[in-house]
Amino acid sequence: MTAASPSPSHVALPPLANDTFLRACLRLPTTHTPVWLMRQAGRYLPEYRATRDKAGSFMGLATNKEAACEVTLQPLDRYALDASILFSDILTVPDAMGLGLSFAAGEGPKFASPVRDEAAVAKLAVPDMAKLQYVFDAVGTIRKALSDANGMGRVPLIGFSGSPWTLACYMVEGGGSDDYRLVKSMMYSRPDLMHRILAVNADSVALYLNTQIEAGAQAVMVFDSWGGVLADGAFQEFSLAYTKRVLSQLKREHNGYRIPHIVFTKGGGLWLSEIADSGADVVGLDWTVNLSKARAQVGDRVALQGNLDPNVLFAPPEAIRAEVIKTLDSFGVPTEGSGHVFNLGHGISQFTPPENVSVLVDTVHEHSRKLRA
Amino acid sequence: MTAASPSPSHVALPPLANDTFLRACLRLPTTHTPVWLMRQAGRYLPEYRATRDKAGSFMGLATNKEAACEVTLQPLDRYALDASILFSDILTVPDAMGLGLSFAAGEGPKFASPVRDEAAVAKLAVPDMAKLQYVFDAVGTIRKALSDANGMGRVPLIGFSGSPWTLACYMVEGGGSDDYRLVKSMMYSRPDLMHRILAVNADSVALYLNTQIEAGAQAVMVFDSWGGVLADGAFQEFSLAYTKRVLSQLKREHNGYRIPHIVFTKGGGLWLSEIADSGADVVGLDWTVNLSKARAQVGDRVALQGNLDPNVLFAPPEAIRAEVIKTLDSFGVPTEGSGHVFNLGHGISQFTPPENVSVLVDTVHEHSRKLRA
Repeated sequence: MTAASPSPSHVALPPLANDTFLRACLRLPTTHTPVWLMRQAGRYLPEYRATRDKAGSFMGLATNKEAACEVTLQPLDRYALDASILFSDILTVPDAMGLGLSFAAGEGPKFASPVRDEAAVAKLAVPDMAKLQYVFDAVGTIRKALSDANGMGRVPLIGFSGSPWTLACYMVEGGGSDDYRLVKSMMYSRPDLMHRILAVNADSVALYLNTQIEAGAQAVMVFDSWGGVLADGAFQEFSLAYTKRVLSQLKREHNGYRIPHIVFTKGGGLWLSEIADSGADVVGLDWTVNLSKARAQVGDRVALQGNLDPNVLFAPPEAIRAEVIKTLDSFGVPTEGSGHVFNLGHGISQFTPPENVSVLVDTVHEHSRKLRA
Repeated sequence: MTAASPSPSHVALPPLANDTFLRACLRLPTTHTPVWLMRQAGRYLPEYRATRDKAGSFMGLATNKEAACEVTLQPLDRYALDASILFSDILTVPDAMGLGLSFAAGEGPKFASPVRDEAAVAKLAVPDMAKLQYVFDAVGTIRKALSDANGMGRVPLIGFSGSPWTLACYMVEGGGSDDYRLVKSMMYSRPDLMHRILAVNADSVALYLNTQIEAGAQAVMVFDSWGGVLADGAFQEFSLAYTKRVLSQLKREHNGYRIPHIVFTKGGGLWLSEIADSGADVVGLDWTVNLSKARAQVGDRVALQGNLDPNVLFAPPEAIRAEVIKTLDSFGVPTEGSGHVFNLGHGISQFTPPENVSVLVDTVHEHSRKLRA
């Protein structure tokens, strides 16, 4: 156990019309279970595709603060979501390190200069945050757009980054991978090089997230998308240790307001208890994890975020409703010192029918109110 | 707890020069930890590539009993492996159902007629085993090649099949997938259709494995390669229930000899205890699972098989040795009623340097003898 339950009187929250998400992250009482969706501003929305087509490309969108703000707000206008998340990519940091990020149409991300030998590792350094100014500008622009004339926000804005290990996977592989052969070969053959990459990544991610917080992010999330591909033992040494190195450097408050920290290791269910001791406020879970058992395991150490399979959104409304209710019931009624944020266990699919997202969001709100009644 | 510890006096084993693998599966005492590797007869071996090139293709190999026998024995001639495994594919059963399996060069398997609607599901039936005669012929040929003039085998021969759920994934998707959208859409939208596919698959797999046993397979393994992509709850309903339906129909003995049953759910670590209650003799584990905790969890219900990350084989010999020793030490000394079969947590990579496999196999034998001393 690392953290005691926070006492409501000691937690200052920013002025928000809807602060349910922040309250659930900090395990404070809520009237309903807050919900947001990974990639909620994404290709499944026709209005997103229209804005992206105007911007020319994914990175064109991400580097234009007005366009990034526009797509960040689009899902909030359609659905009663309880949080917004910065429109950006998890790989902006290695791009700022000079690795040359690009997205070929229909393919995943690619780095022009992957990091595969001692010389390339030696050149790595924490990047100048000025190269990421477009991200911080987008954060500021979105915060302004979310605020009314009195400075009251609609919902909180979440900032994010890839985890040190996840960034390293892309940096060494040069893109996505289905076997992680190159990055794991380096890890098993030259652990010294891997540790050096991860140390630079951790310090870069910490600085990047702290600068997002200073620019206006009201919570931050570390996506350890590929932590789950590691062996037991290797996960702790090469992923979790560096996520902790990030968390230990993160601002817990800004302007007097508490900033929750979320960590999500896809495929990390077996290591839940260790992740819950990482210093994070919230641990994200994928759909393989039983929420009821997870809650019993973490006790009042952290709030939990998750964990519906995004493929549920291809089912008819009645089936979506049933699966959402099952998920809420599995967590159970949040009580003193516990917190649940509803989310998918992975980013929403580009093929999702937009009307099905309404069913999900509305069912989360209705059923979670019923549970508390 | 489903199974009591078998008493050595009640277990009859076939005549084998090396029966260590069968003994470990049945949790009988062994002088060393047996080792075999998933895909041990595969593309990383130059002699395999030569035989495949002669046969023309992967399925050309699999359907020719002499060629299949030749590649099955190749790794045994190079390494001191404790078991052989039939050279075949996990998708032979749906091919025999008439779905039209093919392997395009450099791509994964494809089905010409995927099963995506009610009409296609209605047509499914347990296939005539005559269509799989090439598999049973290969089993018989391999068994003969493994036997000396007195009928004494070198090592046991393992037969196998894909699990009902894993077969269903390929049958609905029509090939590999990175999001399982089509098969999960059917599962969440039309669970009745999915249950019908799985029931046919389970009965087909049971008949297929029993026919392999009659042809000479001395142990059988069910590969639930895609069970780990399911949500908690869905795994139990759509994968494990049908694996159990297979296991409940399998012959436990043939010609008076005990036939061990192995189940391997990749990504199934969170459900280990439930899988250990499936009726299997051995549960396979991937590298995300801590072997020491797994052993404590399953007690004397089942033996464990696994679980080195195949990417360890890209490291230098000293690092391979260290990781193999770590894995053996994590399981600990097998005692009365426990059993450990050393394996990788996934098929060996085609890029593996063959000489590194010797390091692995020899270290397993040396260190596991030392542990018992």
